[in-house]
Amino acid sequence: MSRIAVLIGERFEDSEYTEPVKAFRAAGHEVVHLGLKKGSTVTGKREGTKVRIERAVAAADPGDYDALLIPGGYSPDHLRAYDGPVEFVRAFMESEKPVFAICHGPQLLITAQVIEGRRVTGWRSIVQDLKNARAEFVDAEVVVDENLVTSRRPSDLPAFIEASLKMMGVMVGQSA
Amino acid sequence: MSRIAVLIGERFEDSEYTEPVKAFRAAGHEVVHLGLKKGSTVTGKREGTKVRIERAVAAADPGDYDALLIPGGYSPDHLRAYDGPVEFVRAFMESEKPVFAICHGPQLLITAQVIEGRRVTGWRSIVQDLKNARAEFVDAEVVVDENLVTSRRPSDLPAFIEASLKMMGVMVGQSA
Repeated sequence: MSRIAVLIGERFEDSEYTEPVKAFRAAGHEVVHLGLKKGSTVTGKREGTKVRIERAVAAADPGDYDALLIPGGYSPDHLRAYDGPVEFVRAFMESEKPVFAICHGPQLLITAQVIEGRRVTGWRSIVQDLKNARAEFVDAEVVVDENLVTSRRPSDLPAFIEASLKMMGVMVGQSA
Repeated sequence: MSRIAVLIGERFEDSEYTEPVKAFRAAGHEVVHLGLKKGSTVTGKREGTKVRIERAVAAADPGDYDALLIPGGYSPDHLRAYDGPVEFVRAFMESEKPVFAICHGPQLLITAQVIEGRRVTGWRSIVQDLKNARAEFVDAEVVVDENLVTSRRPSDLPAFIEASLKMMGVMVGQSA
C-alpha cells in the first residue's frame, strides 16, 4: 500500500480533500498531512472541515512518500507563496512518483515550474496560467499524463479518484 | 474629475478597495462598482466590507469610464472565470486609459492577455504567472508602466494610491 502526502493549507475546497482521502484510506493507503506549520489546523472554505498538519512541508522528505495529493480551493494559492511547498512539489514531480492535483491544485505545479509540455487540466480561472506555463490544457474531467493526474472541479472527483487509485495500483505493482 | 470603474467580486481584500476608493472620492472622482451581477452584494474576505454591484460588467461600456481599479484578494480569481470581466479588462487596457491593479488584481490582466512586455508587480503567489505571461516582474511597492499602475499588497497602498491619483491628474490634464 502507498503512503500519500496531502499538501494542504487554509481555505482548501473541502470535498477535494475529504473524498479522495476517504477513498485512499478505504483502499488501505496511509495519508500524511503536510502544510506550512506542524501542529497547526487548516480549515476548508465551504464546510469548515478541520485538518491538523502533521508535518511541516519544509522539513518533509519527498522520499518518504509514494504519492502526492494537492486539493484545490485557495489552499494552493496560500502554499505557493512559500518556498517549502514549492520545493517539495518540484522534488516530487522530478522523482516521477504519482501526483494528483485538482481545481486550483495545478497552481503549485506552475510555481514549481514542472508542467511545461505536460497534458493537464484545472479550474477554469487558471486555464490561461496553465497555457502560459506551456502546459497542454485539456478540458476533461480527468487527464492522466505519465505520473500526473489532474481534474477541474469537485464534480470531477469520481473520475479523479478512480484514476488516482488506478495509478497507485500500477505504481505499487511496478515497484513490487 | 474622473469616473472610475471598480471591478470587484466575492472575498476581495477589504483595504485594497476601501482605501483607494476613499482617496479617489476625496479627490473629487466618481466611483462605480462593476461586478458579475447588478444589484448583488459582494463581501470582503478580512473585514466583511459590503459592496453593492451597481452594474453588471458584461453590460458595461468601457467607454463610459476614465479609469479602472482592480482590488485583490480572491475577487480577481472569481471574476476571471467569466468572459464579461475579462473582456472589459481587455477593452480597457486596449483603450490605454489608466488601470490600477493590486495584489491578485493582475490575474485579470493575465487572463485578458494584455501584459506581455509590460512592467508589473503583484502578490508573491502570482509572480511565476506574471513571468509566464511574459510580463517583466518588478519587486517594488508600485510599478508605473504607461497607463498601468500595479502594487503587491496592502502595505503598498499609500504608494499605489499616490501613483494612481497622479496618473488621473495627468490624464485628465492631457484630455482637457
